[in-house]
Amino acid sequence: METHDSGLHGNEGDTADTDDTADTGTNNTRAASAHSTIDFTDLTAALRGRFVTERSIVSLYETDSSRAVFSGEALGVVLATSAEDVASALGWAHARNIPVSVRGAGTGLVGGATAYDGGLIVSLERMNRIVEIAPQDRLATVQPGVITADLDAAAHEHGLFFPPDPASVHTCTVGGNIATNAGGLRCVAHGVTSDWVAALTVVLADGRVLRTGARTRKNVVGYDLTRLFVGSEGTLGVIVEAVVRLESLPEGDPVTFWADFDGLAAAGSAVTDIVASPSRPEVLELLDAFTVRAIEEVFPSGMRIPAGALLVGQTVGPHAAAHAEAILTLCEANGATESAIAADDSLVEARRKSNPALSARGLKIACDVGVPVSRLAEMFAGVAEISEQHGIEVASVAHAGDGNLHCKVAAPDTPSGIAAADALIDDITRLALSLDGTITGEHGIGQVKQHELPWQLDEVAIDVQRAIKDALDPRGILTPGRGI
Amino acid sequence: METHDSGLHGNEGDTADTDDTADTGTNNTRAASAHSTIDFTDLTAALRGRFVTERSIVSLYETDSSRAVFSGEALGVVLATSAEDVASALGWAHARNIPVSVRGAGTGLVGGATAYDGGLIVSLERMNRIVEIAPQDRLATVQPGVITADLDAAAHEHGLFFPPDPASVHTCTVGGNIATNAGGLRCVAHGVTSDWVAALTVVLADGRVLRTGARTRKNVVGYDLTRLFVGSEGTLGVIVEAVVRLESLPEGDPVTFWADFDGLAAAGSAVTDIVASPSRPEVLELLDAFTVRAIEEVFPSGMRIPAGALLVGQTVGPHAAAHAEAILTLCEANGATESAIAADDSLVEARRKSNPALSARGLKIACDVGVPVSRLAEMFAGVAEISEQHGIEVASVAHAGDGNLHCKVAAPDTPSGIAAADALIDDITRLALSLDGTITGEHGIGQVKQHELPWQLDEVAIDVQRAIKDALDPRGILTPGRGI
Repeated sequence: METHDSGLHGNEGDTADTDDTADTGTNNTRAASAHSTIDFTDLTAALRGRFVTERSIVSLYETDSSRAVFSGEALGVVLATSAEDVASALGWAHARNIPVSVRGAGTGLVGGATAYDGGLIVSLERMNRIVEIAPQDRLATVQPGVITADLDAAAHEHGLFFPPDPASVHTCTVGGNIATNAGGLRCVAHGVTSDWVAALTVVLADGRVLRTGARTRKNVVGYDLTRLFVGSEGTLGVIVEAVVRLESLPEGDPVTFWADFDGLAAAGSAVTDIVASPSRPEVLELLDAFTVRAIEEVFPSGMRIPAGALLVGQTVGPHAAAHAEAILTLCEANGATESAIAADDSLVEARRKSNPALSARGLKIACDVGVPVSRLAEMFAGVAEISEQHGIEVASVAHAGDGNLHCKVAAPDTPSGIAAADALIDDITRLALSLDGTITGEHGIGQVKQHELPWQLDEVAIDVQRAIKDALDPRGILTPGRGI
Repeated sequence: METHDSGLHGNEGDTADTDDTADTGTNNTRAASAHSTIDFTDLTAALRGRFVTERSIVSLYETDSSRAVFSGEALGVVLATSAEDVASALGWAHARNIPVSVRGAGTGLVGGATAYDGGLIVSLERMNRIVEIAPQDRLATVQPGVITADLDAAAHEHGLFFPPDPASVHTCTVGGNIATNAGGLRCVAHGVTSDWVAALTVVLADGRVLRTGARTRKNVVGYDLTRLFVGSEGTLGVIVEAVVRLESLPEGDPVTFWADFDGLAAAGSAVTDIVASPSRPEVLELLDAFTVRAIEEVFPSGMRIPAGALLVGQTVGPHAAAHAEAILTLCEANGATESAIAADDSLVEARRKSNPALSARGLKIACDVGVPVSRLAEMFAGVAEISEQHGIEVASVAHAGDGNLHCKVAAPDTPSGIAAADALIDDITRLALSLDGTITGEHGIGQVKQHELPWQLDEVAIDVQRAIKDALDPRGILTPGRGI
């Protein structure tokens, strides 16, 4: 991990040899000049115009969608179009102990793709080809930069779909989903991204190419390296191709249902009962009144504001309506003040806007904790208590069927304001752990949650994680100091 | 891996110090005398009567259910009753570079649990307690020695079940299922064992205790160590507790259907169509006429012998009958000579007896290959060709819905007879790989498939696997020389 600040910073000065072989004019003097000891000759020879050092371009690739702060300058960005490009880039960086950040669409929320000062950026956005869809085996082969919704749409043409659907599905990439083991709204029915990855092609830290997994339903040859790379947040290798599983589209239209509750704790009890029942929803989301109000204010659509919380979900398949009715009965038994089948799916679409709506209202500091579904009511009661103790209002949105909560708080843009918000989020995170939970359900660790890691993992677990990191990336060039 | 033959063999002779602290009389002189340089004092002090060296007992733990041959003598067997026992055993072996074999019920089919000459055996059969069932979260906490069918039965009391069901479900253990990532008949509907493991407690090679995973549905903290240990065949650590997921029992009784075909290739085409259809069966098994005849001869129940192949399966849930009818229509479209809904599930029960029936008929040499379901017809056609080329009859049983084939052949008990059978199995295995398949779908590598490993994994993949093994077990004491 020591490569991050490993003396890569030269003085502003001569830039001649860095630009010698450039053929596109996109290399400029500013970045190279900040790190003038680096010789880019081999890299530009291998990548030609696909290695870019122009500051106005590079800077676009230096941050992600999190509040992680980047200061400094990356050496440049590799706009890879092939596995060979990625191998050239990593081989070059490996030989020079240069840190590498990896990115798809930059929609990550924890600073996993933020650049390193003096580091190389590998962007996979141009590797956006759906290589093959094999409907009989329900498999798709994709490059990492494919937009998730595009893969889903292509699968639809064969009567199939790609179940993982993070809220950013229209902008995020499949490679990023795999690197972070992304979740989403449909996990309650279909599991997380790792459940849908059959095989990977990965460029290792030293530029070698690794193939994992198989196209078969069962495969027990060696350790499950596919699952090891899923969720590894760019710290073990760069995914350059994936074989993902697809699922048959359910018959008929989804049925959307909703229920209002006086408070989150009662809604949480309802969720526990629903998940334990045979009426499994495909989507089961919980929003507190604050969040619903924010959505309605920022994206007006006529949503009614509940007294305490709105539970909204969908059922699918031939028995969708009967399952939705059974779920509403459980809601009523748990004290829902009003509940109904909705005429359309606009409530689910509105829920997808909660993040931008809360951000627009200034609530940018968030957590991504998870608890067993049976502990949801306790969790919500605890969050209310913590909010009161800190005197800061908390907005809660939950993939409730998974027990995955995103609590968001506002913070004045001052060091003390941010510190107060962080302290509150820390308390919520510790509460989740005390309820057999997790510090992150779907966003990952990245930079933002680094300090929380020892709260969940003990010394032995961290040791083992680091031993694996060291085994696969002994020079620590891949996304160093993050993830684990 | 060099510890296997690391000079542990002393001469027959003085055994005094090995028995000093024994308090049960189960230590005897024979085993210790073969390895008289080993001092058992610390081990017997920690484990008392739970460390056994009596040959008549130890020999029961030296082989598994495979054709792997064990020669030599293990030092003794640890009949562990707790994680502490396992930690004591591994800590002791680690300090002395002594190889360790690990076993549940010894039902493995690839020699993964065979003992090492001069090695220690850790048996987990006494750690057979179901610690907790949490129906609201659909989780069970179990010790590794719990019989798989016992866990399933306990889950039934809560309206739940444990989906993994290898054919040996009534004798195998959950720990063994996890260590081998076991499959079974219901995988076509529910996936493999790794899909049902939420968290593990593992004793590492040096005796430290590692906790992986979480009780939450989503958890993206660090690398997925749970999935890394599932299927690691005793080479990375010893699983001493597991939190496994349970599923709701489907409503109503299962519906059993069957179809006869003139040959396996036609039946394979039917399976491809069934799996691609929305009528997903819970079980979909294919048996050739030779196998059906063997079952009927060894366990007579009045089964009709098909001309070429029998496809048998089950559907479950509220639409079980309609799904079964849709499947029969697909069978007829693919040339089924006769097909029907069965009056009971006796055909599925009969299928579970195929392995003992074929073994009773002398067909003991088997493969466990897998292919994508779309390649099943090609695979069966190729197996018929290989059988003809070698002049040896092949019996085929397949978890057809997963594309997972167990082809079995008879071999006269002579070196040349066994070599001829092995050569045929090798050809079938290479055929599966040429069809994008795998050398093992559910049995694992163990000792028996070690030579096939480089057929599927290239040098980079093997390098990465070994790097992980070396990182977690640097002295190579855990199941050395097997698995990867």
